[in-house]
Amino acid sequence: MSGRHQPVVGILGGGQLARMLALAAAPLGVNCLAVDGSADACAGQVAPLVVADWSDRAALEAFAHQVDVVTFDFENVPADTAHWLAERVAVHPAPEALAVAQDRLAEKTLFRACGLPTTEFMAVDTREQLDQALAAIGAPAILKTRRLGYDGKGQFRLATAGDADAAWAALGAQAATLGLILEAFVPFERELSIIAVRGRDGEFRTWPLTGNWHVDGVLSMSLAPAPSLGPLQQRASEHARALAERLGYVGVFALELFVKDGELLGNEMAPRVHNSGHWTIEGAHASQFENHVRAVLGLPLGDTGVRGTAAMFNWIGELPDATPVLCGVDAHWHDYGKQARPGRKVGHATVCAPDASTLATRLRNIAQALGREAQVEPVLRALADV
Amino acid sequence: MSGRHQPVVGILGGGQLARMLALAAAPLGVNCLAVDGSADACAGQVAPLVVADWSDRAALEAFAHQVDVVTFDFENVPADTAHWLAERVAVHPAPEALAVAQDRLAEKTLFRACGLPTTEFMAVDTREQLDQALAAIGAPAILKTRRLGYDGKGQFRLATAGDADAAWAALGAQAATLGLILEAFVPFERELSIIAVRGRDGEFRTWPLTGNWHVDGVLSMSLAPAPSLGPLQQRASEHARALAERLGYVGVFALELFVKDGELLGNEMAPRVHNSGHWTIEGAHASQFENHVRAVLGLPLGDTGVRGTAAMFNWIGELPDATPVLCGVDAHWHDYGKQARPGRKVGHATVCAPDASTLATRLRNIAQALGREAQVEPVLRALADV
Repeated sequence: MSGRHQPVVGILGGGQLARMLALAAAPLGVNCLAVDGSADACAGQVAPLVVADWSDRAALEAFAHQVDVVTFDFENVPADTAHWLAERVAVHPAPEALAVAQDRLAEKTLFRACGLPTTEFMAVDTREQLDQALAAIGAPAILKTRRLGYDGKGQFRLATAGDADAAWAALGAQAATLGLILEAFVPFERELSIIAVRGRDGEFRTWPLTGNWHVDGVLSMSLAPAPSLGPLQQRASEHARALAERLGYVGVFALELFVKDGELLGNEMAPRVHNSGHWTIEGAHASQFENHVRAVLGLPLGDTGVRGTAAMFNWIGELPDATPVLCGVDAHWHDYGKQARPGRKVGHATVCAPDASTLATRLRNIAQALGREAQVEPVLRALADV
Repeated sequence: MSGRHQPVVGILGGGQLARMLALAAAPLGVNCLAVDGSADACAGQVAPLVVADWSDRAALEAFAHQVDVVTFDFENVPADTAHWLAERVAVHPAPEALAVAQDRLAEKTLFRACGLPTTEFMAVDTREQLDQALAAIGAPAILKTRRLGYDGKGQFRLATAGDADAAWAALGAQAATLGLILEAFVPFERELSIIAVRGRDGEFRTWPLTGNWHVDGVLSMSLAPAPSLGPLQQRASEHARALAERLGYVGVFALELFVKDGELLGNEMAPRVHNSGHWTIEGAHASQFENHVRAVLGLPLGDTGVRGTAAMFNWIGELPDATPVLCGVDAHWHDYGKQARPGRKVGHATVCAPDASTLATRLRNIAQALGREAQVEPVLRALADV
């Protein structure tokens, strides 16, 4: 109907990340079209949705013709699907970059090649190699699938070498399909992430480092800017830039980091907008979602400056009562429009404040009203140290 | 498909206001459904759209069954349509409140009844009454249609009583249909608006007064908080509250005000989210769009506190080059996804800053890059007086 061309960003996956991308794209005059195997994918509430499997080439062919660029809500899109699409339409990030981030072994190898230290790690293809890796790395250690792991899934922690049989029983069947990797267990002091964006022309920006707290392997709380960083912000930005340039990366990505003995260790890279960057919607001048849309379309990148300090509550499984957030000062409710289900990310809330002590007060009030003091407690401790 | 009920807000009208309402509703887990006579109404890019005329009762009947509450993107929905819907579903603001705001005579009569001064005015139904009104009010004066006027449409300015014939030639034919009103011309010092919201339970909040500048009757620039107000902020809030309570109003509305000799005069009331409140998207903790959605659904109202100072450029007719805004610090682009057309509102940009002098610098840089120094000049003068 329109006499002007509005760019269309195609998104593989129609979850909450696609939903928030579409909401950020609209003010730029950019429309989104998501593809998902599920007809009730929540992005479909705010953007048109193609219901199709990754193997449905006819649907993907039609999709490719309707969009100006393809990107991802979900990094585990099969590599052959991404490559097949890239022959038909621009795909950002490129399938090659996606492939590295999909594979823990390739990812950690790249980190080291770029000068970012990691924990000790070794590929494990057989039961014998598991013993060899344990002998080299020592225990405690974590056996992980190389691919398709996220939110703590596909992992087995070995307290001692004696746990090797149990670990193999849990994950050995996947050695041939997904591949396995043994990583030294790091008793890290802090978990951080840096959200970064690189444009088609190589322009590169980061948001401030975010402090993260996980429960059962799933992100529970984030705090940004992470307090008391010293030189780590600058170093993390440099590492993120080196990775992005090596990969020719276009778009937003998250680099998850551990702090051990005051130094950064690379944990993993998520080749997409990331849960630990949701605070940028209200806490920064341009959000990760807006900048991802800008980057993949070749628009200038937006201002990643922050408005103060911000913390995010993740809502897992089901939404709590919204009232304490709706009534909070500079507090922002995000309901993804999904059905409740154990372990599912169904929403988040971001609370902003001009300074750490004000943020702590606002977080404490909301947590108390929700009976979620335990969720917010590590963030309050971090804020008290500021 | 969903096993949970997500509220649906029905919106009469599918323009940019409906579009921005839908974008603000989504994070609350609220879906929108717009009705518009035009299949390319721009809200349809972000929310489902029913294409129907106001007289299409079958379509509106189906629409009423799909939504939890009905509201307006457009105040000139026929009163009988609003009343007919209100018999079937909750309508906020109520048709009675809408009717007052649709009629300049009823509106100004209400203002005075609530203690808000206005310019002199008189109803004009005949050519003779125009002479009588001119004799009573004097010239200069403005003859306006009572209904369906907006953005300076349906107005004729009389410099002297000798212009009565020309004014009648321009608007007399509408005396029997829309009604006419003669208003004294006010050589006002400033134009302000206050955006206010009232919840279903009577909770009432306002955002800071906004300074506005019009060109050819259409909003060109806004600045918030309007500088150098003294006691006017408090008085404007009280007037807005009195009006809202008298009308039993639910939702967001704008009260347009003139400042004459340092005192407020009521000009008109817009019973909806308003162009002069677009800065609240980035400039306030909860935007006018979010709070309108909250209000009509009976949710708690959001925090109307501001982040600093903000100014809005209105884009009329066509969009300028986006680059200077996309590259600006804390600058935000809003493309409504509409086709260019003379006089049409096709987008806006909001620039935020922590203080007046920083805002002035940012505005000047963008205006210079766009060759729009004249548009921004009155705002810079107002900021220089801070």
